[in-house]
Amino acid sequence: MQYAFSDRIRALKPSAIREILKATQDPNAISFAAGSPASEAFPADAMRGFADEILRDMPAAALTYGVTEGYTPLREAVMRRMQEKYATGSADDDILIVTGGQQGIELLSKCVLNEGDTVISEAPSFIGALNAFRSYAANIVGVPVEDDGMDLDALECALSENPNTKFIYVIPTFQNPSGRVTSLAKRRAILDLAERYDVLILEDNPYFELRYSGEAVPTIKSLDTKGRVVYCGSFSKILSPGIRIGYVIAGRELITKMTVAKQVSDVHTNLVFQMVAYKMMTEFDLDAHITWLCDLYRGKRDAMTRAIGAALPGTSFVEPEGGLFLWLKLPDRIAGAEFARACAEKGVMCVPGATFLTDELAPCPYVRLNFSTPSIAQIEKGIEIMGGVARGFGIQ
Amino acid sequence: MQYAFSDRIRALKPSAIREILKATQDPNAISFAAGSPASEAFPADAMRGFADEILRDMPAAALTYGVTEGYTPLREAVMRRMQEKYATGSADDDILIVTGGQQGIELLSKCVLNEGDTVISEAPSFIGALNAFRSYAANIVGVPVEDDGMDLDALECALSENPNTKFIYVIPTFQNPSGRVTSLAKRRAILDLAERYDVLILEDNPYFELRYSGEAVPTIKSLDTKGRVVYCGSFSKILSPGIRIGYVIAGRELITKMTVAKQVSDVHTNLVFQMVAYKMMTEFDLDAHITWLCDLYRGKRDAMTRAIGAALPGTSFVEPEGGLFLWLKLPDRIAGAEFARACAEKGVMCVPGATFLTDELAPCPYVRLNFSTPSIAQIEKGIEIMGGVARGFGIQ
Repeated sequence: MQYAFSDRIRALKPSAIREILKATQDPNAISFAAGSPASEAFPADAMRGFADEILRDMPAAALTYGVTEGYTPLREAVMRRMQEKYATGSADDDILIVTGGQQGIELLSKCVLNEGDTVISEAPSFIGALNAFRSYAANIVGVPVEDDGMDLDALECALSENPNTKFIYVIPTFQNPSGRVTSLAKRRAILDLAERYDVLILEDNPYFELRYSGEAVPTIKSLDTKGRVVYCGSFSKILSPGIRIGYVIAGRELITKMTVAKQVSDVHTNLVFQMVAYKMMTEFDLDAHITWLCDLYRGKRDAMTRAIGAALPGTSFVEPEGGLFLWLKLPDRIAGAEFARACAEKGVMCVPGATFLTDELAPCPYVRLNFSTPSIAQIEKGIEIMGGVARGFGIQ
Repeated sequence: MQYAFSDRIRALKPSAIREILKATQDPNAISFAAGSPASEAFPADAMRGFADEILRDMPAAALTYGVTEGYTPLREAVMRRMQEKYATGSADDDILIVTGGQQGIELLSKCVLNEGDTVISEAPSFIGALNAFRSYAANIVGVPVEDDGMDLDALECALSENPNTKFIYVIPTFQNPSGRVTSLAKRRAILDLAERYDVLILEDNPYFELRYSGEAVPTIKSLDTKGRVVYCGSFSKILSPGIRIGYVIAGRELITKMTVAKQVSDVHTNLVFQMVAYKMMTEFDLDAHITWLCDLYRGKRDAMTRAIGAALPGTSFVEPEGGLFLWLKLPDRIAGAEFARACAEKGVMCVPGATFLTDELAPCPYVRLNFSTPSIAQIEKGIEIMGGVARGFGIQ
């Protein structure tokens, strides 16, 4: 039969990246296209031990229905850690455990966006979030990302031109895909503008603890005293993405509504792994693990920047101080998509920059390179191959 | 600050049952209010062993991102089982693993419902589904459930009066809350009407393998040759609800769209437990476990029907041939909500029938009793207490 889809969903396409990843199962390919932690980075033995304890000692509690808000000890532990370590989350806030940070983004969209409402986003930005906004028929307005975060004039212009704006979507630390960090001054300015135009801020912050150099910058949420910032956090990059555990910290009334929306979406998040995450926070040295991860990824980042310096003259980048991505600028005349396609033919995968734009057809001389999943040897070999491709494009 | 919620979400309230369950944490209370398996029913040791194997033998694959469609071996195993054992799912169908059956309902709603579109539902019906439809601002039209399923005249009337109907929502086997089974003749008639009015059927079938007496009836999906039936299945009632693993079998184009919607919702379902579910299907005797569950629950059902016969004259019910629920009819003059409140004061919890109606204020002389979670001793004691409450209402 002919299916009739809803207006909001009809035009929605699968994430180009996930399609690229599915298509490139060639085990000999070198992939800089992922957005995942390294496979050697998972604290699998500790998680295995805790899962075993939970299923041995409290099987009935772990295997039955849980409350939608999330496993209470985990909620309390996350809130305590975020408050004590990062001054993030106030007594007026509440916390909801979600099935990965992506679900926080989707639930906020469902709860505040009417069709046609505007979301202002960094451009480029995370495709999964942009697609979540599109799935509620939002009008997405992109604001260019500069080296220190959003272009503030363009942001103010977008706010004044779009009075139906509901929130500003920001990945302030090690942004996906640009790797940029929004400066403290710009975080304050974005919050001021949100106040002035009475809109929310969705602060998506999955990478911030993976810092390899430079100074930590406070979260936007830590500057917020009025419940204007909805903070999305995740265990995906510091423990494992496959377990699908994230959290949202926001004003109580908003969390209550998002909880109702989550109840109809998946009732609650996998309970055994909520309990595992709790034990990873309280019976495992999470901070030491994060320090170890930073050492691992610093080595990979340095290998990639060194290799690019040697093999890709004529390209440029801002060295990422953390996170998973390096945003490589090609000469303006080169389309990232063509370059990425040529690299794929040589067995090296990367993601065309235009994938991350609200207008995927706009010219975009960038590619996103992930340095967390490949080995250092793969990084060196892959960048060398890209160097050959670049020479074929006359880049030197 | 004042939050402005979207039109679709503003009026949505939390599930009354889940609120009741949260409120009644009194460990001495006897609860007939749940919708869960018995805590002694989880095959915890087997799941524990498989989780351990997975995290030992393939940690990198289990802990990283998976594809949105779900773990391929699990998808294939479920499809094979449903086709071979229940003739459910054709070569033109595809399968999507979801984070519990609830997510299948939510994703279909998101993919096909525009605001104001009609969903026709059994009345009474599962509150989680009704709230999912409400969360997309659907117009819900209830059709009374008779002893053998929907009132067909009322169904046809609803279809002809609501040309914007997108699907008929049915729980054909051991319906929640009524415990009823839709007869084969009515399944055929519902499918014929769906054909005639060109609407989909959402067949929600989480209980069907828990049959304690009577003859199995084919799924509606097994009668469907045109991809008109969207089939939602679940591991919640036969393995564990806390793991949040369900599946949707439907026409390929519909599954493709629902996959895109799932990608923005939670990317994918917890991968370790998708792998555990796969092993439970292939390295564990799932059928023997289901037989054991049926023996366990048959004993509890029989205890409840016996106890009601002895302690609650003046009430009536159709004996449920399976599932988790007994739908108890009080004399017409008694509101289920008042009766349930009086029982709660005596420490026995049950759910007022009106909770399951599209119009919660309609008079409803029913309560839903769950017999799977309490012990036989609790069933006997709880029903005896309810008998005392009934006498207080002059029921005898």
